[in-house]
Amino acid sequence: MAKVTLKVIANTLGLSTSTVSKALKNYSDINPETKLRVQKLAKDLNYTPNAFAQSLKSKGSKIIGLLVPDLVHHFFSSIINGVINEAEKHGYLVIVLQSYESYEDEKKQLKLLVDKNIDGILLSLSDKTIKYDHINSIISEGMPVVLFDKVSQLIDCPKVIIDDRKAAFDATEHLIKTGCKTIAHITGPLKPKTTIDRYMGYKKALEKYNIPFDKSLIYTSENLSYEDGYNLTSKIINDHPKLDGIFAFIDPVAIGVLNSLRDMKIKVPKQVSVIGFSNWFMCKTTSPTLTTVNQPAYEIGERAFQLLFENLNNIEQGKAITSKIVEVPTNIVFRNSTKKIID
Amino acid sequence: MAKVTLKVIANTLGLSTSTVSKALKNYSDINPETKLRVQKLAKDLNYTPNAFAQSLKSKGSKIIGLLVPDLVHHFFSSIINGVINEAEKHGYLVIVLQSYESYEDEKKQLKLLVDKNIDGILLSLSDKTIKYDHINSIISEGMPVVLFDKVSQLIDCPKVIIDDRKAAFDATEHLIKTGCKTIAHITGPLKPKTTIDRYMGYKKALEKYNIPFDKSLIYTSENLSYEDGYNLTSKIINDHPKLDGIFAFIDPVAIGVLNSLRDMKIKVPKQVSVIGFSNWFMCKTTSPTLTTVNQPAYEIGERAFQLLFENLNNIEQGKAITSKIVEVPTNIVFRNSTKKIID
Repeated sequence: MAKVTLKVIANTLGLSTSTVSKALKNYSDINPETKLRVQKLAKDLNYTPNAFAQSLKSKGSKIIGLLVPDLVHHFFSSIINGVINEAEKHGYLVIVLQSYESYEDEKKQLKLLVDKNIDGILLSLSDKTIKYDHINSIISEGMPVVLFDKVSQLIDCPKVIIDDRKAAFDATEHLIKTGCKTIAHITGPLKPKTTIDRYMGYKKALEKYNIPFDKSLIYTSENLSYEDGYNLTSKIINDHPKLDGIFAFIDPVAIGVLNSLRDMKIKVPKQVSVIGFSNWFMCKTTSPTLTTVNQPAYEIGERAFQLLFENLNNIEQGKAITSKIVEVPTNIVFRNSTKKIID
Repeated sequence: MAKVTLKVIANTLGLSTSTVSKALKNYSDINPETKLRVQKLAKDLNYTPNAFAQSLKSKGSKIIGLLVPDLVHHFFSSIINGVINEAEKHGYLVIVLQSYESYEDEKKQLKLLVDKNIDGILLSLSDKTIKYDHINSIISEGMPVVLFDKVSQLIDCPKVIIDDRKAAFDATEHLIKTGCKTIAHITGPLKPKTTIDRYMGYKKALEKYNIPFDKSLIYTSENLSYEDGYNLTSKIINDHPKLDGIFAFIDPVAIGVLNSLRDMKIKVPKQVSVIGFSNWFMCKTTSPTLTTVNQPAYEIGERAFQLLFENLNNIEQGKAITSKIVEVPTNIVFRNSTKKIID
């Protein structure tokens, strides 16, 4: 006999697995009649929730999983730091995994975590992930998941985000307010939402200050690396001799830009201003120091664990789990790669 | 009745707990007569090894713990990366913790790990750790432990190390071979073995080339930070106007030195050569790029897991666990903060 899963119940009754899951947990947003139908069928079929759901009821393992795309990024090290410190306060240990920005690895690693009877998962999506069944099915089976940094609207769970569009708007506006008129944007790989959001923020700032958008000023860094920033810069300067500002998707790219401009004897910020994104440790060590958007990684990690912990408590107390979205504010760190604002 | 522990058996027979532990595991380096005495008493007292030792016998949890002093260091992020990738190949998950360079936290975190029935522990000692009972007792109770990077001879377990003395010798020799005669060494906090070893390597190189050792050329960076390097440099230059070389304990300090020299309009390497240690990502982004000792962090992490895995297999097959020491070679990465070698 096939195992009775949420899916079997859902298919039998013509409902979504998420509705069935919520009905079994007595969520308030599910129609009482639907609840009764689901609960009756589950009882008739002798449905048992799977291992981790049971383990949660019996106090849990006090271990959570943290899956990030890339461990060596300074940004993710700081996030891990925030998660681990916050988890420690509540007596939780953290298994750390990485997806290497690969959809297949993300699926594989999530399965490994689920098989280990952990209590919950914190996840930042890989750049290659565009289908979400592997995550939604875990959630609908009762595993508490929190997304952070790289998230998707197609996944219903708590999230910790920054407003990438606003942050990119602020960065571009800062260049405009300090006198830049021809501003290039080095963008990232097309898929992740952050790429689109930062691009949109850049465009919106130009619009506000009546600077015509010029598609030829958009350059793509596939690897978001120092080398990409370095190598793209001579092309950007060749294509646009009047260029006076560059907004780079992420700090390593911006630092590549800085060093390439230095080697071309182009003065920063006198001739060209440069602004980065993320506020990596080394921004204060470059010459000139790099103005950038501060993305508070430690706080993002901390808040992500807090959201997970809230839902672990909700589950323990038989309450509905929530899908709260927390937006962590960003700010610009003014250093010497941009000019002072002209009043 | 008090619980029968290794310690009780050891005290009764006037042996060390480590000897008792080895005798119970039938190690070849224990006298057969001692083995018999230990094994008889253990049987008489109904000695049972504790939870994790039992859990290991029953196939184990396939989870290991990794305790590092500081997560945000680029060096440790790369080590974690090496550990996680290697662990993944063998189906192991990794709980990551940090001791914040504190002895008390190290003790606390190790206890947390042991209580979780994990299969083994990878550990880099905190700078403040000078007593090792908390580690030796875990080992003697049967938990496989591997030390890496910051280790101690007073702990009997497998270790992955680099030859800090040789690496520091090489770094100093490189400065001498490129013409430097008055070389300052910025050292770290006194306690860790790495500090002493690098200091000894520096001294030994001077000795080989008949350069008199001058104590006033030794400066201490308490926080091993960029700021420390920056702030110490003006003092160093003031104290020693003839200075032509600086060997810094670790890259962030060396980068602080580079930037301070630049701000003082002192040319690198024309007037002063600078060499760092570790090969952090940003060494290739500084101006000039930083010559440094490459400490292969990824490989250290990888080898540490391999040594642990060997012992997990040994335990499963009833073989004695080993205390192998693996030395990972270092090399100098030649960049532009030092001159070319004079033949």
